[in-house]
Amino acid sequence: MVTKKMSELPSSRALPRGFRFASAACGLKRRGQTGTLDVAMIVSDPPASAAAVFTQNLVQAPPVVLSRAHVRESAAAMRAVIVNSGNANCSVGPGGMVASRATADCVAKLLGCRAQQVVVCSTGVIGVPLPVERILNAAPGLAESLEFSPRAFEGLTRAIMTTDTRPKRATTSCRIGGKIVRVAGCAKGAGMIHPNMATMLSFVVTDAAVAPSVLDRALREVVNRTFNCITVDGDSSTNDTLLVLANGASGARKITKATGADYVSFVAALEQVCKALAIGIVEDGEGATHLVEIEVRGAPSDAAAKKVAETIALSSLVKTAIAGADPNWGRILAAAGRAGVPFNPDHAEIWLGGMKMYGPPKGSPYSVALPLDERKAHQRLLEKNVSMVIDLHHGRCAARVWTCDFTQEYVTINASYRT
Amino acid sequence: MVTKKMSELPSSRALPRGFRFASAACGLKRRGQTGTLDVAMIVSDPPASAAAVFTQNLVQAPPVVLSRAHVRESAAAMRAVIVNSGNANCSVGPGGMVASRATADCVAKLLGCRAQQVVVCSTGVIGVPLPVERILNAAPGLAESLEFSPRAFEGLTRAIMTTDTRPKRATTSCRIGGKIVRVAGCAKGAGMIHPNMATMLSFVVTDAAVAPSVLDRALREVVNRTFNCITVDGDSSTNDTLLVLANGASGARKITKATGADYVSFVAALEQVCKALAIGIVEDGEGATHLVEIEVRGAPSDAAAKKVAETIALSSLVKTAIAGADPNWGRILAAAGRAGVPFNPDHAEIWLGGMKMYGPPKGSPYSVALPLDERKAHQRLLEKNVSMVIDLHHGRCAARVWTCDFTQEYVTINASYRT
Repeated sequence: MVTKKMSELPSSRALPRGFRFASAACGLKRRGQTGTLDVAMIVSDPPASAAAVFTQNLVQAPPVVLSRAHVRESAAAMRAVIVNSGNANCSVGPGGMVASRATADCVAKLLGCRAQQVVVCSTGVIGVPLPVERILNAAPGLAESLEFSPRAFEGLTRAIMTTDTRPKRATTSCRIGGKIVRVAGCAKGAGMIHPNMATMLSFVVTDAAVAPSVLDRALREVVNRTFNCITVDGDSSTNDTLLVLANGASGARKITKATGADYVSFVAALEQVCKALAIGIVEDGEGATHLVEIEVRGAPSDAAAKKVAETIALSSLVKTAIAGADPNWGRILAAAGRAGVPFNPDHAEIWLGGMKMYGPPKGSPYSVALPLDERKAHQRLLEKNVSMVIDLHHGRCAARVWTCDFTQEYVTINASYRT
Repeated sequence: MVTKKMSELPSSRALPRGFRFASAACGLKRRGQTGTLDVAMIVSDPPASAAAVFTQNLVQAPPVVLSRAHVRESAAAMRAVIVNSGNANCSVGPGGMVASRATADCVAKLLGCRAQQVVVCSTGVIGVPLPVERILNAAPGLAESLEFSPRAFEGLTRAIMTTDTRPKRATTSCRIGGKIVRVAGCAKGAGMIHPNMATMLSFVVTDAAVAPSVLDRALREVVNRTFNCITVDGDSSTNDTLLVLANGASGARKITKATGADYVSFVAALEQVCKALAIGIVEDGEGATHLVEIEVRGAPSDAAAKKVAETIALSSLVKTAIAGADPNWGRILAAAGRAGVPFNPDHAEIWLGGMKMYGPPKGSPYSVALPLDERKAHQRLLEKNVSMVIDLHHGRCAARVWTCDFTQEYVTINASYRT
């Protein structure tokens, strides 16, 4: 398996066969938002298996409601995705669903398929009516310019950006029965990032042949270890969608059950792409200067470990300390202490930036602040990647989540997003 | 009932009788922390009824553990409080409890009472061993300088400050059976403020005569409507303590049951002081420039209403929008939508700064963004006090919580608290 660095354009060889991409600027993005591309299309020439997870927020934008229905109806024969940035088409009254339906209808007509074979996604500001005619006017041009190329894929990755500072993409490949199968994906963040798939927009395409129910199972397995393990600010969005399309164009044999070597290889490849995208979102979190990996060990259950890790990951005090490269492990312990998971703080241990800061000194059963070279610790925390490990010594389970630090820049971005 | 403004010193007439106060600088505060006073004492000359609520964090500092036991043992005869700022005496191993016990012992000896009649509180940095000898050395001087005066009370309010920019105090009075009863309190924030009494240090003293069990009941009733309705950043502290002492020095008849006019009058006075202190903490939240009152109406239960209000109050996206005076009601709706409380967003209504921003226009059952004078809305949100009202139209219950905005200054303060 070879994964490309996120900054490099994938080569044509890495792109899954049978997909074409197009993007355009139709005037939905406001000045100051990243780039000008704001609408894009993905088409699978062979009808593809589709699986998706959507936001769990009670407030769900019309494109989410519509696309959930379309994925259910066309899980075995999805044809296209149309996505816009700059406007979430959310909380705008019944006109929102009219606009999403019109978009799906328009794309279906252009491609000669049914509207139910089209997924519609929107991301951007909430509550502003979507000027859908701009998307409808751009659609024929998009359909005409569809192509299988790294450039076209790159356009897609840029067209979905809002406050992202860079596109997030990842590719990998694996062998199924001797044939090469490719997986490529892209994602956009960067605020409103929180577990349980109220997270972001992400599209993953593969030329593996996978039965819809198996694809759904694989996606849910992978999401729990990747996208559901990241958080930027605890806010979940109204539009978040992660979609996987598998069109079988590789010619590899079809994966029809969720066991066995083929399934395991495919899940590993899917996980690799999703993990790279998820971490890419956190790294590019609004205002982020550090990527923080939080590992909780010695918990009574995996769920408990994850709860503690998430509580730490969401603590404003922990996140601001990391922004200041301050080895303030006391805040980590205090955050763990309010997670609702039983453990004895007197026996817990904490490592920050690879340095053990809290634990029992030799000959004592009680944890205390360990002698610390403050200057060295500060230096360590200036590095881009920061690791936090907390051992609760209250069980054998573990979990890992990723987050970013909380900077003044986050506040600057979000204090003036609309105005 | 008359409540003094927080900025004014209370007059001697407003101070509950039978209490004396003292404060000193013993060298626990680091440079840059507010003021230099860092240790203080409260003494009730008649043994007082005591009730307290403590942090619900699993990580509890030794002073919390010790004081909980002391309040249990001496609920009918508490004599003193000794409190230090600059060091939380938390997560320092068995030495922490030794230090807290030594402090209680020392004060008890000076006052001629039992150690169990002394409450010990600490606030400040976690994980640094407390140089307790500084407190022990300062204690005799404190005991000698105890006095009943506004100046002495003022010293107490300053000695408990850490990142607070100003002391928080409130006084009021009421009549119990024709006699005047006084209630005075002080509090310190300013980070790690979150509901469920993992909140702060606050001391309330009254010369009312109240049976311990009734005082406990009154405190819990009041806390649910005041301190448990505020949040700054969602982080709960390891040391938080709210203590009420009632010494009966007013000569008013004793309140022995949690019903009737006397109880109602006393609870109202206690609530007035606690509400002023709680809101004072939020107003002085780290980096705060706005006080935000969030009212949720039309919820299926009071608990559901509070859950929605707290979710909004904790949303970084909502709080940064307020910092930027950005009328971004979409973020309020999105936060409400992830609170886990059922409602139909299509029928909800949102007012921000007194202006209705989301609701059904005339003749339509569906809520949409209402026409908005953006400039006027921005102007409104520049005011110090910001009100948010969201009606879920899904029941008849309501709740109100207070929070502050989330500014760059919050990040600045917390990125460099220790270093």
